[in-house]
Amino acid sequence: MTRFISPSLSGLSPYVPGEQPRDRSYVKLNTNENPFPPPPAVIEAARREAGKLNLYSDPDCLYLRESLARYEGLKPENVLVTNGSDEALSFIFFAFKGGFIFPNHTYGFYKVFAELYGVPYEEAPLKPDFTVDVDAFITSGKNAVIANPNAPTGLFLPLSEIERILDANGDRLVIVDEAYVDFGGESAVSLLGKYDNLIITRTFSKSRSLAGMRLGYILASKELIADLNAVRCSINPYNVDRVALAAGAASLECEEYFREKLEAVKENRAYASRKLETMGFTVIPSRANFIFAKRDGVSGEELYLSLKKRGVLVRHFKKSGIEDYVRITVGTREEMDILISKLEEILV
Amino acid sequence: MTRFISPSLSGLSPYVPGEQPRDRSYVKLNTNENPFPPPPAVIEAARREAGKLNLYSDPDCLYLRESLARYEGLKPENVLVTNGSDEALSFIFFAFKGGFIFPNHTYGFYKVFAELYGVPYEEAPLKPDFTVDVDAFITSGKNAVIANPNAPTGLFLPLSEIERILDANGDRLVIVDEAYVDFGGESAVSLLGKYDNLIITRTFSKSRSLAGMRLGYILASKELIADLNAVRCSINPYNVDRVALAAGAASLECEEYFREKLEAVKENRAYASRKLETMGFTVIPSRANFIFAKRDGVSGEELYLSLKKRGVLVRHFKKSGIEDYVRITVGTREEMDILISKLEEILV
Repeated sequence: MTRFISPSLSGLSPYVPGEQPRDRSYVKLNTNENPFPPPPAVIEAARREAGKLNLYSDPDCLYLRESLARYEGLKPENVLVTNGSDEALSFIFFAFKGGFIFPNHTYGFYKVFAELYGVPYEEAPLKPDFTVDVDAFITSGKNAVIANPNAPTGLFLPLSEIERILDANGDRLVIVDEAYVDFGGESAVSLLGKYDNLIITRTFSKSRSLAGMRLGYILASKELIADLNAVRCSINPYNVDRVALAAGAASLECEEYFREKLEAVKENRAYASRKLETMGFTVIPSRANFIFAKRDGVSGEELYLSLKKRGVLVRHFKKSGIEDYVRITVGTREEMDILISKLEEILV
Repeated sequence: MTRFISPSLSGLSPYVPGEQPRDRSYVKLNTNENPFPPPPAVIEAARREAGKLNLYSDPDCLYLRESLARYEGLKPENVLVTNGSDEALSFIFFAFKGGFIFPNHTYGFYKVFAELYGVPYEEAPLKPDFTVDVDAFITSGKNAVIANPNAPTGLFLPLSEIERILDANGDRLVIVDEAYVDFGGESAVSLLGKYDNLIITRTFSKSRSLAGMRLGYILASKELIADLNAVRCSINPYNVDRVALAAGAASLECEEYFREKLEAVKENRAYASRKLETMGFTVIPSRANFIFAKRDGVSGEELYLSLKKRGVLVRHFKKSGIEDYVRITVGTREEMDILISKLEEILV
């Protein structure tokens, strides 16, 4: 790094997103994108905005916040809109005191944020079956961050367990990252009225087919939203652009398409999971749009590399405890069939 | 603020963007937007992306970085793309040590960033004629931040003066915010080969009619860009969406439209400045897309309020030293005529 950099950043280790190689075309099952395009009305709404781009977007994001509030049975002051849910998480790690605890195997960005902002953190080991060790969160005294369903496992933690953490320490926050909740989890949104220490983050990237649009949001008490909004307005008050605001609001009006595509992903998940099990894989029961699986006799890295050579990208984490596994995004039925046939080639 | 907030943020005073009242329609001359829409090819490029939004944007922004590098005579490793230039400035204030110095009257966000990130800062008073006191920057020992042309004055600091600051302290950065440079300044980009302590920030919001798209960029040495990219990838690696990337690249191909609209803004600036002077206003000679002006016998606030009542929004800063002035965005000829006629009503 240069001689100008802050000493606290000299050891920075950025988040590494899933690779996007350009050498050939791949069946891309490595970044948990939705295989289906956004619904026609969303595409149309995005296109309509293109002619008005000389004017700033609404820095209050009011229309989308009203739409989200209506959809979730909340009020606009319970909603903050962000440039993807990564920005939401960044605001949270930056804003709150007391340090953070999260599972040792979870979304890799939590650790990056904690180190970036120099806040204390603790990684609670998952149990051998990959479930969250709730007691570790209860006794830590830190703000809890739980992806639910978790990544890369896909496992869902029942809300009663989330409530145990919320109850245990009312002066610490519980942040539930619901990026994948629509694929089979149950949202903690029903607990917002009861707990003033609960923050939920969401994204339009996965279930709503808008990864390329960068749109996320936070649901919490109006007081917590006011805190986070002060941070937002001190960093980037026009953080969400016109096209994203319009696409997001239109997405909430396309309930039928949304449900239909969610069902398709769930069916493909069940289909691919069954096939993988037939081939001798251990498959963690997923409530998300990806499958975490391993097979005895072949390392995760070998699976990843062999699939890549055959034009299929999956994600492998070189990390003790999960290195035998690969994380496979649930794509279309055709993509799942290609995956299976390539695995059959590899495993003969 | 809540009991959860970090003590360092308890006194946070966010940036206040120009108002966007919804009570009626206004001639909006308060946020320095471009009155002209983006060129048809940009609108078309933005629309084409709408169908691919289920896929993430390129986290390296490679195509746009290559396009910008070609346009500026640099290399892609000299370019970092951001979610508006506010995000660029946020990264810079967060990343670098040594504190910052900027004029006492300039873009209000510099002070917000410095306070947000808890870095030392100094506000160097402008001279009585509103020019930058370069010697104060030379002797301060802090990183210099200079909007050039400056806001809200519109005054341009010659590059030879920027060079004096660059030369004076090679271990401190000089950040030149060129948000308005296309309207009549001269870019410091020609100095990049000579100084490794120079950072230039730019935006597509003003001269390129893309305020609603949120697109900015940084030009600097490849080493400084690497530092800032590590910060970017630790905060939000997918910080720029697909539509913005496509619109930005298309914009650079529309040179004729770009030049034509710049000329129109400059003509309207000259036209409105003349009219204002005829009406007894003191008009600071602007090299930006706004006019900073005052008139004896009527306060800046009075002008602002009277214009607002008549459906014209301008920006007024309640700040000692500039409170007599209003900042008026240069709009279309028609908008300038409305402004003048409303002022004539007010000043009878």
